[in-house]
Amino acid sequence: MKISELADAGDVSVATVKYYLREGVLPPGRAISRTQADYDASHVERLRLVRALIGVGGLSLARVRQVLSVIEDGSIGPADVMSAAQLSLYDTEGGEGGAGPVSADAEGDATAPPSPGAALMGALGWHVRLPDPVVDELDEAIEACVTADIGYSDELLARYAEICLEVAETDLATVPSEPAAAVRQVVLGTVLLDPVLVALRRLAQQHAAHTRLPSTGPGPGFAARPPGEA
Amino acid sequence: MKISELADAGDVSVATVKYYLREGVLPPGRAISRTQADYDASHVERLRLVRALIGVGGLSLARVRQVLSVIEDGSIGPADVMSAAQLSLYDTEGGEGGAGPVSADAEGDATAPPSPGAALMGALGWHVRLPDPVVDELDEAIEACVTADIGYSDELLARYAEICLEVAETDLATVPSEPAAAVRQVVLGTVLLDPVLVALRRLAQQHAAHTRLPSTGPGPGFAARPPGEA
Repeated sequence: MKISELADAGDVSVATVKYYLREGVLPPGRAISRTQADYDASHVERLRLVRALIGVGGLSLARVRQVLSVIEDGSIGPADVMSAAQLSLYDTEGGEGGAGPVSADAEGDATAPPSPGAALMGALGWHVRLPDPVVDELDEAIEACVTADIGYSDELLARYAEICLEVAETDLATVPSEPAAAVRQVVLGTVLLDPVLVALRRLAQQHAAHTRLPSTGPGPGFAARPPGEA
Repeated sequence: MKISELADAGDVSVATVKYYLREGVLPPGRAISRTQADYDASHVERLRLVRALIGVGGLSLARVRQVLSVIEDGSIGPADVMSAAQLSLYDTEGGEGGAGPVSADAEGDATAPPSPGAALMGALGWHVRLPDPVVDELDEAIEACVTADIGYSDELLARYAEICLEVAETDLATVPSEPAAAVRQVVLGTVLLDPVLVALRRLAQQHAAHTRLPSTGPGPGFAARPPGEA
């Protein structure tokens, strides 16, 4: 197909397609003349992937490039797909890295007290990479909760962790066994499902609040009354 | 205390404190001279709240102002706290609103087919406000998942919803009964716990992957082996 057809299929402008080609996040088409190239279904799929990562995932083009390199790296074992794919989303420093399965830097921390996040991982017996940018993120998020005094407690955190394991088991059930497809699934599932879960949590809060707390009445805008009820 | 002491207690610069005072997200101190004011513990608490909402929550100052107005609005019933607090986080248009418990606009949509998010709410029998910016967000997130072809299905979505209800029940258990405190808790808990849950989901994925998938070996950086094991 022509570049204009590719742009249409990906719901972007021709200028955007040219930009992605220049930036290397879209592979070049097959040259059919000095000014024209031919694109196929794989280009459409890649274009949609890039749009999804930038649009919903909120990733920068540099991060998209990292993610794509992980997707195309065939050397990663199935069990390392999760952490490798995650690193591609987090590792802003450290150059091209991010796809390596583990880091050995944790050794030096053996004598220092663990961070709240690392301590939680230990208490749960979770098998995670340490150090890990996700644990750093967890530490920062926990610290903000403690500072803001919102009823944070270790028990509450352990309960959330337990529930997140249910989410992860559900996530994992959707991951295909072929490595490249698995990385794609993990990266996209991680980025694209976060907003789904965040939105569902808020809606579940509304529902739970109306089920458990005294209300001033549902009002005219509330949905989900069983059919047949007034 | 002096403005410099307030700044220290909130871990910000005096310039930032002055900026917050000018923008009205921090109430003025008690004037003790023409150039000096006295601040107390309530200012420290408010300053920390504002920092948390901006820093972790990623809210704009305008949004922070909306959130604070909800916190200070004593007229909201307990059951409406969830949706009112949520609206304060979402309602970018519609001026000062956002604290009203419900909107009646859904009526006009009765004949149109429901959006994927609204359909899910109906199927689950969840009691949520419609229309709702959170449902719009859910629709957008679902559409991105469908477009990206990541094994999205109605069954999968229903499973995530079920798990999110467990999160919401846990959230709700931490909410105090006093309305102003409840709004504060909901707004902060909504904003500050999202990053905790997102990080925990990723770590749970790593753990679940290593529990269920063939690995190339845990490598030296992995934690959480039971003590005593080599």
